[in-house]
Amino acid sequence: MTKRNEKISDVIFERVALIGLGLIGGSIGLAAKRAGIVSHVAGYARSKETRDVALERGLIDSAYDSAAAAVKDADLVVLCTPVGVLGDVAADIKESLKPGAVLTDVGSVKMAVVDAVMPHVPEGVHFIPGHPVAGTEHSGPHAGFAELFTDRWCILTPLAAQSSDAYSKAVNDLDTFWAACGSNVDRMDPKHHDLVLAITSHVPHLIAYNIVGTADDLETVTKSEVVKYSASGFRDFTRIAASDPTMWRDIFLNNKDAVLEMLTRFNEDLSALQRAIRWGDGDALFNLFTRTRDIRRSIIEAGQDSDEPDFGRSHAHFVTPEDEN
Amino acid sequence: MTKRNEKISDVIFERVALIGLGLIGGSIGLAAKRAGIVSHVAGYARSKETRDVALERGLIDSAYDSAAAAVKDADLVVLCTPVGVLGDVAADIKESLKPGAVLTDVGSVKMAVVDAVMPHVPEGVHFIPGHPVAGTEHSGPHAGFAELFTDRWCILTPLAAQSSDAYSKAVNDLDTFWAACGSNVDRMDPKHHDLVLAITSHVPHLIAYNIVGTADDLETVTKSEVVKYSASGFRDFTRIAASDPTMWRDIFLNNKDAVLEMLTRFNEDLSALQRAIRWGDGDALFNLFTRTRDIRRSIIEAGQDSDEPDFGRSHAHFVTPEDEN
Repeated sequence: MTKRNEKISDVIFERVALIGLGLIGGSIGLAAKRAGIVSHVAGYARSKETRDVALERGLIDSAYDSAAAAVKDADLVVLCTPVGVLGDVAADIKESLKPGAVLTDVGSVKMAVVDAVMPHVPEGVHFIPGHPVAGTEHSGPHAGFAELFTDRWCILTPLAAQSSDAYSKAVNDLDTFWAACGSNVDRMDPKHHDLVLAITSHVPHLIAYNIVGTADDLETVTKSEVVKYSASGFRDFTRIAASDPTMWRDIFLNNKDAVLEMLTRFNEDLSALQRAIRWGDGDALFNLFTRTRDIRRSIIEAGQDSDEPDFGRSHAHFVTPEDEN
Repeated sequence: MTKRNEKISDVIFERVALIGLGLIGGSIGLAAKRAGIVSHVAGYARSKETRDVALERGLIDSAYDSAAAAVKDADLVVLCTPVGVLGDVAADIKESLKPGAVLTDVGSVKMAVVDAVMPHVPEGVHFIPGHPVAGTEHSGPHAGFAELFTDRWCILTPLAAQSSDAYSKAVNDLDTFWAACGSNVDRMDPKHHDLVLAITSHVPHLIAYNIVGTADDLETVTKSEVVKYSASGFRDFTRIAASDPTMWRDIFLNNKDAVLEMLTRFNEDLSALQRAIRWGDGDALFNLFTRTRDIRRSIIEAGQDSDEPDFGRSHAHFVTPEDEN
């Protein structure tokens, strides 16, 4: 697998088409152009306003008002729409795809995407499902930036049934493309991908959305109080729960089994904690709270987060005592 | 109530004693000295190493190896230990408190603190429970910094039974002290405080600890996978779940009723979401995910968080496209 930061100066795909120009699509356009690995980026978004912003911000070089027109002659087509419409998009573009083109997506679920897209993929087009594991809580054509993928992992889930040399080369090219955008690239079975993401992403988002909803519904604590005292922990959940509603609805509808499985385990564990609180079992609480620190340490060591204290303000404007030394 | 940023140049309390020199205690020392509202800060921590670091970093001006010695002659005594030992600390210092002194604490629960501390408070000492709603996931004598309380709320829960003029003056002085440290100061009934914090802080921490534990226990997904793909949401939970274990054990043991009440509501809501996923009710999911965005917006408007995208790196080193304009 290609490692990030290998020197790459050549164009990998002459013409790239981005279908969907939100946070991920826009960031791909910026990252690929910065890396010099594409000659032309064509883009499609449903709304004219989004296309205009995308052109203005330089996310794309040309805009099209249909996905089919955008993918014409493209060597790489990246589907960046919410997962729920990927099947329809694939049906729309299937007649226009160039023979030999590489087709990929950026969806946060993979089994359902394979099921939805694969029936529409023409002979000779190489479909390689993908998922750049990166994001912020912002969405839309203003949200993308070229560094989004730097040091992040991108998971490709190549289709086991495809074993031709041409398919292998396509997978390698896509791998090199993502590495040039800053990612470390990994490969995985789609089913396993869905299980991993259920615990690292989908269930965390679900419980963040859930607790923000619970707080909003209380009659004993006012919304104004929740807002004022959010710095004590709640704030971090609201950040996650501000993510794009359509994208997340589609993720839960399309990764049902894995999410429900992980949720069952989460609930079992939470019941045990609840019981420990009710019966005053301080040791059980202390032991869990100590164990969870180790995972945090591993994440910082792996470069997936910084160890700066987060107290909810722009870190650029405050200096911590450690920095003063 | 005093509003932050009023001009305050006078000394409010000549001699302050900090019992416990972790994140909060250390930050109080730095903030109070910076504001010029104290003449001398005495400090006590159980470990000599902590006291030495506190002196070296200038969190305190003098260190004592017993809490009783530290509080002698102090005009303001701030208890900054975990909630579970506050009763013992109050018993230790009761003979040494100066008549007329103001005694406060920084605990995240208030009913249990009143019950534990009040029996030890001598006649003529003014006990005013308090809670600065601020923090990071870091702890210990290295963690404190002077800006921790800036723009954050500090809740005082004065005792309803105390209505003397001297007590009212003590409450006003403490209010002014916190405002000079950067806080907005609010007053609340202790029981209501515990309910508000259960939803804004205690339950969020509990579910963060819980999901990190669930992830750690999985046999189908490796710990290394959890770490690698944490950028997709999980990472933010590990930050919260890295908070001080002793402090949090004590909070849950001492705010049992409010935490269990809020947890019950959280569980009911989560069951409804789980059901929506199982039955493919996309509208229910979409409606919740849209509603939760409003609370996020209110928190940003109230200055309790920044709207910068969080992608887990030092914000100082990256420029978002919006900043480039």
